Amino acid sequence: MKQEIAFIQSEELKVKPKADSLGFGKYYSDYMFVMDYHSEKGWYEPRITPYEQLILDPAAMVFHYGQAIFEGLKAYKTADGTIQLFRPEKNMKRFNESCDRLCIPQIDENFLLKAIKELILIEKDWIPEGDGTSLYIRPFIFATEPYLGVRPSHQYKLLVILSPVGAYYGDQLSPVKIYVEEQYVRAVIGGVGHVKTAGNYAASMKAQEVAEAKGFAQILWLDAKENKYVEEVGSMNIFFKIKGEVVTPKLNGSILSGVTRDSVIQLLKHWNIPVREEKISIEEVFAAHERGDLEEVFGSGTAAVISPVGELNWNDRSIEINHQKIGQLSQRVYDEITGIQLGKKEDPFNWIIKVAQV
Amino acid sequence: MKQEIAFIQSEELKVKPKADSLGFGKYYSDYMFVMDYHSEKGWYEPRITPYEQLILDPAAMVFHYGQAIFEGLKAYKTADGTIQLFRPEKNMKRFNESCDRLCIPQIDENFLLKAIKELILIEKDWIPEGDGTSLYIRPFIFATEPYLGVRPSHQYKLLVILSPVGAYYGDQLSPVKIYVEEQYVRAVIGGVGHVKTAGNYAASMKAQEVAEAKGFAQILWLDAKENKYVEEVGSMNIFFKIKGEVVTPKLNGSILSGVTRDSVIQLLKHWNIPVREEKISIEEVFAAHERGDLEEVFGSGTAAVISPVGELNWNDRSIEINHQKIGQLSQRVYDEITGIQLGKKEDPFNWIIKVAQV
Repeated sequence: MKQEIAFIQSEELKVKPKADSLGFGKYYSDYMFVMDYHSEKGWYEPRITPYEQLILDPAAMVFHYGQAIFEGLKAYKTADGTIQLFRPEKNMKRFNESCDRLCIPQIDENFLLKAIKELILIEKDWIPEGDGTSLYIRPFIFATEPYLGVRPSHQYKLLVILSPVGAYYGDQLSPVKIYVEEQYVRAVIGGVGHVKTAGNYAASMKAQEVAEAKGFAQILWLDAKENKYVEEVGSMNIFFKIKGEVVTPKLNGSILSGVTRDSVIQLLKHWNIPVREEKISIEEVFAAHERGDLEEVFGSGTAAVISPVGELNWNDRSIEINHQKIGQLSQRVYDEITGIQLGKKEDPFNWIIKVAQV
Repeated sequence: MKQEIAFIQSEELKVKPKADSLGFGKYYSDYMFVMDYHSEKGWYEPRITPYEQLILDPAAMVFHYGQAIFEGLKAYKTADGTIQLFRPEKNMKRFNESCDRLCIPQIDENFLLKAIKELILIEKDWIPEGDGTSLYIRPFIFATEPYLGVRPSHQYKLLVILSPVGAYYGDQLSPVKIYVEEQYVRAVIGGVGHVKTAGNYAASMKAQEVAEAKGFAQILWLDAKENKYVEEVGSMNIFFKIKGEVVTPKLNGSILSGVTRDSVIQLLKHWNIPVREEKISIEEVFAAHERGDLEEVFGSGTAAVISPVGELNWNDRSIEINHQKIGQLSQRVYDEITGIQLGKKEDPFNWIIKVAQV
């Protein structure tokens, strides 16, 4: 795609929120990237405009047949003023995989990454400085054609919005209580669980609500076919450290292929810590605990990076992991990845893409 | 809910489309019903307004986490000028079941039905007259809160829009070729397949696209766990007539509980035609054909009412049903249901709700 990205200047800029009140996904920057699609034109009119309300027909297909996908990544400002991204090409690639699964026309990955960089440069003052903070980048596409027949839409909108965020779970890593879900399922092989569709998240809320009412922070999803094998935790991938070895569920078509998941695996290999991607049953996890071999459990995702699990509840049985304290490895992985992201640690994997020096 | 429904007059009315060019879901009437929800206020400001564009924040949760549900029903005008609905209370009830599954606050079913009647009365001239035509009614709810954390939205919009429609598949019932899908799945027990979520439809498009490229009109979905039992056809329920007896898959938590499905079952019982709701494998269907016992296959749904199946293709084997002609029973069920809907036949089940005489 060789189109120029138009720029429409905002007449007035917002007051930026304080770094200690950011939370997650509450504030949006002054500008956004927008691009439209029509089946007769392809993707057209890429532009950076003021962050503004969208105008949509009530019959726009997104409201009815749910073609909506997204990505999530972050921009960081290092101590020396470098603005950088963490493996954004992985997000671009997965974005297209989500497109394909939901019959949404694919995008030019390089072009979108270029657009994101331009947007971030304009919004560089929105990247917060402070531990655990970053500028969250949310690219998303949804169907806009006003039509009520069931088929892929002929019109779409792609946007990228930016939100300055604090650490997802607050200042410190703190282990959470997890409920192993047996009634509801998140996804099944042959479905859409391996890509980032809006509908996946809507479908997951009920189980989360039930678990919260029982006093748990998140749910651990089991596979839909046998209700036996571990899939994900909340909206994160999951890792178990059992007797010095790390195991994470193998990508099987219903598990999301997380960028942080992949980074954790590479990191562990780099450290010569044994790590295996394989089918792991919840029964094996509990048996490992019984033997005293279950040392650490943690989730991985872009929003929280690493989220330690302190307790697992399955079938009315509760097990405590590492005395509800952060495991050494969980902390080490967290420090390393956030260290690389913030330019405090070396980047032997070439994960970092530098956008600019400010 | 005792709120008054406000009415905002339109300054100008549209030119109505001709009855023979309606298609499905292409035209929308002059007015729509709107109601908003805020967690602190409940559902508020019910109003009938001109059909107009919606204004939404780019961070509105529907675009990101997909809380969106809908219903579909129709208003009919009989030869003597009566305006009537077909079992609308079933749609209201299912609407609330969809709400519950997606953590959307429930609505007052009676109030919404009253609002729909008011809207239809205002739009009575939009109900087309002519065989197979009707005014399609689309109630839907979606999340509007601008927030990027994953949890149920605190704000929603409910709308009802109206679309004059022709027969879904054109003038005459015509048997279609169906592809039995083995790779993709529509839904799984523990998921959201039993309710009308937008995401279900987005997830189904890929398989439909692949089947169309192979020359098939629709897909037959199998169960997600064993890839063995018949679930639905396209976005309809399915019936098999085998040696004089009718079988339809039993509601199991992943099959949509269709209003037309229920009506077909009641009608068959009324006619003393044996009908069973049970698990039926695709293997059994093909074996019945082998024995010469598979007499008819048809889909049922609000849009098409009855859609005969002329051919089934499974695992590279194709079988022809009733020589690709409309079966007697399929035609009889279609005539009876559309007859009741249009006031041409008696309504022994009290399915009809009269809205007005014009």
